[in-house]
Amino acid sequence: MEKQGFAIREFTIEGRNAVIEAYRSGKPIDKVFILDGCKDGPIMTIKREAAKHDTMIKYVSKERLDQMSDTGKHQGVIAYAAAYEYAQVEDILENARKKGEPPFIFLLDNIEDPHNLGAIIRTANLAGAHGVIIPKNRAVGLTATVARTSAGALNYTPVAKVTNLSKTIEELKKEGLWFVCADMGGTTMYDLNLTGPIGLVIGNEGEGVSRLVRENCDMIASIPMKGDIDSLNASVAAGVLAYEILRQRWNG
Amino acid sequence: MEKQGFAIREFTIEGRNAVIEAYRSGKPIDKVFILDGCKDGPIMTIKREAAKHDTMIKYVSKERLDQMSDTGKHQGVIAYAAAYEYAQVEDILENARKKGEPPFIFLLDNIEDPHNLGAIIRTANLAGAHGVIIPKNRAVGLTATVARTSAGALNYTPVAKVTNLSKTIEELKKEGLWFVCADMGGTTMYDLNLTGPIGLVIGNEGEGVSRLVRENCDMIASIPMKGDIDSLNASVAAGVLAYEILRQRWNG
Repeated sequence: MEKQGFAIREFTIEGRNAVIEAYRSGKPIDKVFILDGCKDGPIMTIKREAAKHDTMIKYVSKERLDQMSDTGKHQGVIAYAAAYEYAQVEDILENARKKGEPPFIFLLDNIEDPHNLGAIIRTANLAGAHGVIIPKNRAVGLTATVARTSAGALNYTPVAKVTNLSKTIEELKKEGLWFVCADMGGTTMYDLNLTGPIGLVIGNEGEGVSRLVRENCDMIASIPMKGDIDSLNASVAAGVLAYEILRQRWNG
Repeated sequence: MEKQGFAIREFTIEGRNAVIEAYRSGKPIDKVFILDGCKDGPIMTIKREAAKHDTMIKYVSKERLDQMSDTGKHQGVIAYAAAYEYAQVEDILENARKKGEPPFIFLLDNIEDPHNLGAIIRTANLAGAHGVIIPKNRAVGLTATVARTSAGALNYTPVAKVTNLSKTIEELKKEGLWFVCADMGGTTMYDLNLTGPIGLVIGNEGEGVSRLVRENCDMIASIPMKGDIDSLNASVAAGVLAYEILRQRWNG
């Protein structure tokens, strides 16, 4: 993967025609905010486009839209578009091949906080991972906040967006990858063999890894917990696991 | 350390007399926002109190104060008070003694982002550390955001606030602690002996560990960097190092 030098900027699209036009021209839209109760023709068109493109829809008050609006002319709809172009899963595998390394890929099962997503992409870059895969639905996409929080990592580490994470895992198993997810009740991470081609699955901040995805994983890794509370912050957990993988890869 | 059950709530104090009164009654104030250019008597009194108590002062516009205000009656000044009572360094050592473990303490050299501070306290709890020490000056204190981001860890892990981090390090050395700080150009963390009574020093998000503090440390640990960018997020770096310490402590 060559350095790509993506610009980091806000892509807020306001107004009915502007949002419809954005969908028609293929702009990747992460989230659309619609005035609650609004049901006229153009809004229905936007809802259909949103469903077609797996965009998250949020129904909000006029007050909220007014607050979010830069132009003051939102006409009941504001869309957030990606500040970054997504890669393909194949680009990630190609990145590993070019470096002559067994693939090391992060898969994020519905990370919702853009600061966590940015921090995780930053970690993926520094831990030597070849890319990050996120699901289309529900999770946060590559917004300007994510790009900023990634501290430049988005310029180097390819991020692919897939429709179905379980299906992607199955496809990558054919490429020889093993999958480990972070969850309670698994094997202590130090006791697992985390070398070789590997996919590291990190779950949602509140709910953890979804059942279907967990069932598709080959190993469940637990981070030792010596304290009183339940779980680490998602980006910290990703960092701790990624560095255990790195330790085994390079020091093993 | 017994479970303490601190309430997590916002302590915003608005208006000149209210802020002066808060200082005089000894409330721990973390930060005070003052209208830029304001120089009358009560404001000068607040500035003196802020200097005396090492409170961070921020000079902001009227617009910003209006946004922050809950009451609409800030009179040019809004203070943020701690949502939590600070522990003493002695409480942290006592916590280790009670558990019959060699002390393991986090020292944060000017962490500024409350989300990072909260995530680090959360990590300290789960990695089995006995407490966290933060400096009075410049750094963020225990605000409501920190308490929330700590996911309950503030109820269990004592946090002490000290005037001079270097001096505290010197005092703790007399108690037998060794100090390791995270910085570039040090020894790879896997090659250091991080067992025994230990203080883990984490630097500021942008500037890293300050010179004086670094010179007081016994070891400089580097996290391996296999990517393109410079550094991990501060709370991720703290997590990776803390878990290397935990690994060496428990897996010997």
